[in-house]
Amino acid sequence: MNNLLVAQSGGPTAAINATLAGVLQGVRASGKVDKVFGAKNGIEGAINDQLIDLNDIVRDIEALDTLTYTPSSALGTCRFKMKDWREDEATYKKIIDTFYKHDIKYFIYIGGNDSMDTVDKLSEYCKVNNHDFIVMGAPKTIDNDLNLTDHSPGFGSAAKYIATTLAEIACDIGAYNIPAVTIVEIMGRNAGWLTASAALSRLNGGSGADLIYLCEKEFDKDKFISDVKEKLAEKPGILVAISEGIKDKNGNYVSDLVSSGEVDNFGHKYIAGSARALESLVRDEIGCKVRAIELNLMQRAAAHIASETDIIESLMLGQKALTCALNGETGRMAAIKRLSNKPYRVEFVSVPVNEVANHEKVVPLEWITPDGHDVTQEMIDYLYPLIQGETNLKFENGIPKQIKLY
Amino acid sequence: MNNLLVAQSGGPTAAINATLAGVLQGVRASGKVDKVFGAKNGIEGAINDQLIDLNDIVRDIEALDTLTYTPSSALGTCRFKMKDWREDEATYKKIIDTFYKHDIKYFIYIGGNDSMDTVDKLSEYCKVNNHDFIVMGAPKTIDNDLNLTDHSPGFGSAAKYIATTLAEIACDIGAYNIPAVTIVEIMGRNAGWLTASAALSRLNGGSGADLIYLCEKEFDKDKFISDVKEKLAEKPGILVAISEGIKDKNGNYVSDLVSSGEVDNFGHKYIAGSARALESLVRDEIGCKVRAIELNLMQRAAAHIASETDIIESLMLGQKALTCALNGETGRMAAIKRLSNKPYRVEFVSVPVNEVANHEKVVPLEWITPDGHDVTQEMIDYLYPLIQGETNLKFENGIPKQIKLY
Repeated sequence: MNNLLVAQSGGPTAAINATLAGVLQGVRASGKVDKVFGAKNGIEGAINDQLIDLNDIVRDIEALDTLTYTPSSALGTCRFKMKDWREDEATYKKIIDTFYKHDIKYFIYIGGNDSMDTVDKLSEYCKVNNHDFIVMGAPKTIDNDLNLTDHSPGFGSAAKYIATTLAEIACDIGAYNIPAVTIVEIMGRNAGWLTASAALSRLNGGSGADLIYLCEKEFDKDKFISDVKEKLAEKPGILVAISEGIKDKNGNYVSDLVSSGEVDNFGHKYIAGSARALESLVRDEIGCKVRAIELNLMQRAAAHIASETDIIESLMLGQKALTCALNGETGRMAAIKRLSNKPYRVEFVSVPVNEVANHEKVVPLEWITPDGHDVTQEMIDYLYPLIQGETNLKFENGIPKQIKLY
Repeated sequence: MNNLLVAQSGGPTAAINATLAGVLQGVRASGKVDKVFGAKNGIEGAINDQLIDLNDIVRDIEALDTLTYTPSSALGTCRFKMKDWREDEATYKKIIDTFYKHDIKYFIYIGGNDSMDTVDKLSEYCKVNNHDFIVMGAPKTIDNDLNLTDHSPGFGSAAKYIATTLAEIACDIGAYNIPAVTIVEIMGRNAGWLTASAALSRLNGGSGADLIYLCEKEFDKDKFISDVKEKLAEKPGILVAISEGIKDKNGNYVSDLVSSGEVDNFGHKYIAGSARALESLVRDEIGCKVRAIELNLMQRAAAHIASETDIIESLMLGQKALTCALNGETGRMAAIKRLSNKPYRVEFVSVPVNEVANHEKVVPLEWITPDGHDVTQEMIDYLYPLIQGETNLKFENGIPKQIKLY
């Protein structure tokens, strides 16, 4: 039997189920896989032998379509960091036992950095110990910080959500004629790709983000206050986009500066984000109306405004990972290679997963403008194709149709 | 000359420009209006003679279409509360001067409670002082708290955004297998209609909001903690929806309990919302992972997920307000009368604006379940039709097309 196991890991995205659907489409098209299982909650499902039968869904075109547009990880997710097999072989043996028990030959793991580390370690363990299993990775992360792939599935949809939402918020705040600052906090502790996509809110010539601060560049609060004052002199409503991970010159997160010890009236400690820290700062230093907004889980879950380009590429990467697995590739990750921006052309390749795992691809400093509060045209040219197109998501009863696999 | 002035006021919504477009469509269709102006920033534009020429847009079908789907108030907005004319006649005289100067016969004011108060006072002033001007209101408010109309334009789109977003967030948190509580704060200080729409996230049988607390009902934090614990015993990821305006038994806002005096490391004072207050509470009383989410401006600006029903009704109410004005009605507001739920049928009527102004329509307590943490089927039947259908919003460069009127 040539059975296949697929799993998802790390933070959910609006496109990770599209990659799962891509793997299942590939299974259907290839005719080379006997049975397909999903591991529940990532590698933990393989360790604990908690598998979900996916054979019915492979045969159901409509279900595959609904899966493609359902946000989050339909198989469940985990944040499990594998130790080296020499330190903890028991965990590896449990996985291998699950593989043997269910005649699994191929394992495809869809995820980010930590998941690629698992692919790396598990494939190495299999090679060294002569277990004839294929372990392939497929990328996903809204953070876009994966190495060796031009960009990562899930990122384009999150970027489209951010660009759209900031264009809409700009309309809202633009309707008022009193000075006001709105600060939007965008996910990304170390990589500012998503925050950079705030620049796309201005694509149609309308207003959008006025100031953009990425976490790659040292954040200077005096400079920030003077930037905001300068913009306020031009118009009343100012929209600021910041990475959650902006840091001061000592490398301390701005958010840490306000979450260290305050206690509220219930006697409870606070944890605040960067936007809220800057909200207080603006209120006291400038004194105008100010509002902090966190795009929170919405930016990674908003399948209703997913990018068609992202969803198609996510599907293709699932298919590519499967094709590579069927061709005997192991310890590798399906990836995107960009051939050109205009017209936008990519090809799907595979790359060695050990060069992906535990690396973090951050924004090159030269893609941030010299004034430190915007991004360059090169960055916009890179981002632009990734948010193009709207999907064929179906609505039922006024809300998006979704699938549940367990 | 029979000229018309139109203005928008109060908090922006995703549908208030549809009502403006409806007025302009009506102008085009009627052939009874010579010139159309928009007052900039609501009644302030009439007071200060800041008018925008809208005659070109009346003739441009494509621009009217783009206006329909552009969120926020394209004419700008204000929060200006008129005093009684006997106290401050100067302001009234300025408005009347603007009307005479531009040969304005009809004034249509699109807005919520405060705007309808302006319509009421201004129309009364004109009658008493024998100024032959027509003053009509058209409703809008995402809060849905306007009297004498079954529901208000903007509400259905905000409700659709909330239902969709909560269904997506439920997918996200459902992927994890560790206990976690996510608390979503929804706009509404005194009326919980929007929070009630969180129940629509479950319409397709998937998971959605598990607990829903409206501001109409006294909020008991011990009961809340016990409700959450009960749900956590059933499944790991719990989604809670609360009104920003939930209050304790003494009528104090829950949000006030945590925003009274804390100072952060910058020395700045905090202002927190209800969700953040409950986040701290859950962290300390239950100890599991917890996250506060505010839907913030997105819930009123998200035109990209507007309800088709809402947009069409908003257009119709603009047309209705114009028709009433042309028929000589003054001091009244265009409104929606619901004829039946299934099939959903409404008619557009006009109602006396003095019975709308300064009233607040809250959720009837019998539409909240006896356990206090959900809404009844009657509430769902009321809400259901309002979020149906998706709009024909156009995208350009991957983000929604929008119009700017000034």
